[in-house]
Amino acid sequence: MLSSTKNGPLSGLIVIDLTRILAGPYCSMILADLGARVIKVEMPGNGDDARQVGPFYKGLNGEKNSAYFLSINRNKESIALNLKSPEDKLIFDKLLLSADILIENYTPGTIEKLGYGWDFLNKTYPKLILASISGFGQTGPYRELPAYDMVVQAMGGILSITGEEGGRPTRVGVSIGDLAAGMFGAIGVQAAIIERNKTGRGKHLDISMLDSQVALLENALSRYQIEGKIPEPIGSRHPSITPFGVFKAKDGFLVLAAGNNAVFQKLCDAINQTEIINDHRFVSNESRCINHVDLKTIIEKSLMERGVQEWMMIFKAQGVPVGPLNDLSDVVKDPQINARGMLIDTLLSNGEKILTAASPVKFIGDEPFAPSPAPKLDEHRLSLLKELGL
Amino acid sequence: MLSSTKNGPLSGLIVIDLTRILAGPYCSMILADLGARVIKVEMPGNGDDARQVGPFYKGLNGEKNSAYFLSINRNKESIALNLKSPEDKLIFDKLLLSADILIENYTPGTIEKLGYGWDFLNKTYPKLILASISGFGQTGPYRELPAYDMVVQAMGGILSITGEEGGRPTRVGVSIGDLAAGMFGAIGVQAAIIERNKTGRGKHLDISMLDSQVALLENALSRYQIEGKIPEPIGSRHPSITPFGVFKAKDGFLVLAAGNNAVFQKLCDAINQTEIINDHRFVSNESRCINHVDLKTIIEKSLMERGVQEWMMIFKAQGVPVGPLNDLSDVVKDPQINARGMLIDTLLSNGEKILTAASPVKFIGDEPFAPSPAPKLDEHRLSLLKELGL
Repeated sequence: MLSSTKNGPLSGLIVIDLTRILAGPYCSMILADLGARVIKVEMPGNGDDARQVGPFYKGLNGEKNSAYFLSINRNKESIALNLKSPEDKLIFDKLLLSADILIENYTPGTIEKLGYGWDFLNKTYPKLILASISGFGQTGPYRELPAYDMVVQAMGGILSITGEEGGRPTRVGVSIGDLAAGMFGAIGVQAAIIERNKTGRGKHLDISMLDSQVALLENALSRYQIEGKIPEPIGSRHPSITPFGVFKAKDGFLVLAAGNNAVFQKLCDAINQTEIINDHRFVSNESRCINHVDLKTIIEKSLMERGVQEWMMIFKAQGVPVGPLNDLSDVVKDPQINARGMLIDTLLSNGEKILTAASPVKFIGDEPFAPSPAPKLDEHRLSLLKELGL
Repeated sequence: MLSSTKNGPLSGLIVIDLTRILAGPYCSMILADLGARVIKVEMPGNGDDARQVGPFYKGLNGEKNSAYFLSINRNKESIALNLKSPEDKLIFDKLLLSADILIENYTPGTIEKLGYGWDFLNKTYPKLILASISGFGQTGPYRELPAYDMVVQAMGGILSITGEEGGRPTRVGVSIGDLAAGMFGAIGVQAAIIERNKTGRGKHLDISMLDSQVALLENALSRYQIEGKIPEPIGSRHPSITPFGVFKAKDGFLVLAAGNNAVFQKLCDAINQTEIINDHRFVSNESRCINHVDLKTIIEKSLMERGVQEWMMIFKAQGVPVGPLNDLSDVVKDPQINARGMLIDTLLSNGEKILTAASPVKFIGDEPFAPSPAPKLDEHRLSLLKELGL
């Protein structure tokens, strides 16, 4: 039997992780970051497909290593097992005996074909929780279709409301289709653990990437139904507060957020345009929303006179909510992000380091976040077999 | 003392919810959907500010009701308490005696000023978990600055990589700054519950909206550091797979995803452009990524000959991964989304109904999701006071 000596609120929990690429590994990384022991079971040969996804860095022997894989598989162990081989199945069965949670993101039906369907698992390991993460879920007409992040972003509606005003629907710049499913997966797994602490029985969690997109639609769904208009991309402004969005200054962009008339007047003061306060186009938030294009033109004409840093100081002094638009080079230098320990040095196998995002789930008084690096394929075979008595 | 008779994996847990607007209420809705009893403590008078946020519908007496509030506060009870009034503080103290979790999303420092800082809470209610959700977190130089969704989207980097190629950074069409913090909040609360089941002690969870954005940056962070180029908006295509993105057909958009040469050839067959398979610009994924503009022009010229539905059938028959680009009117009709029960009829106070997104955290064999409606301000005062013996 395996045991777990990791620190953290989920300490003691053992996760067997069959997942590949992004949604599943993001889910198990969240659990690992919170102290669960996560054992990644990978296909012999190439392992998790994410190992072949860039960006790559060159290792000491010239081999291509995936920095992408590295950033979502820290804090995990790896063993390579072929679940179609009887010998490897024996090892896998031994792992399941110790496990609290099995996570998989195969196309629905696959885990049954491998001999580990829910009926078998629940009978054999009654305390085990099975978390299935798939593109469309375990039920419904599309259940067996393959899904990609972009496909569920498109089907779930978020793409149709992201982009330039009047322009094409635009992908969210990160794989929110995968990431949201991973987060809801971690939520469901923990809920099942809490329930199991009372009932002694595991459950089968059924997370769909498409469902998870629908759950993020926020007010777009009610706006469509109540107002009867199909929501469209509107760039970087708020649908019902103006001025509230991204504006261009001399050397870059900044965000201004004026939620009411008082702040709007301060904003006009700050840009030396007090004469527009009483302009009939801008007297109320409602009229400003209607005339948002005119207002933006006026604001940006003024903003072109100075740089972002100078404007930030002016707006802050006036009490106008303002923020920088950070690109990735700014993010890694941002004082707040660094003060929060949100970027951690991760050692590459060539001796170099890169920054990866830390866990955002922080408890006051806990030790600083210090994960172990992502495993090499099959790195923990020997130690695991020894622990299992094999 | 309060008790809880709700169904679900978190049944028995009692959440006192001081949160307003979106991040906090989304967090407590996730917990409520999973069976926790959530008691929303609102300011007398107007209550949660989200009650004043549109879209609005007209009630039977002509009053303006927020459909927005409705969609993120189902399954909760409401009591109006002024935490600066000694009488109301007594009621609040009684609520805390029964509570497992207190959630707040004030600016850091405010809960201390109200007399409910962590030191006091932890001494008085040692089992209580305090979940603080804020714009920038409880520590760091920006901790006391106000945050808005768009500010943290801009500071966290996601805005800088969303938008049209060569165009302006674009806001994600939903408030992902709030939603992600709500999700990580629910993850942290459950982790603290699992730990408390072992230690008997609560913890103070410190969730920052900005941290949560950084945790979503996915491969952009490693791309920037390994490749040395600052990632920019690239519209609706994948940064390293081509063709993989949104394409325009005669009557709308669809998503095509050709991850390798074999699928690319099928795609060329489907659009009757077999001659481009051996075009030197498109012979490998790498060359297709370099020449993605040329390829898109060719594909879209062909796609203009038919409508989306016809193309979907053709691509599916050829084995090319394809999906529709659903706008909100398509989402509410989508057969998979409906088969999954992801849209639930919510009764408005005027007798009409709208669809809201259901919980995406589904367990096989559980009852269909049937939440109670969002509460009116102070709706549960009498029943709560009675339960508390006041």
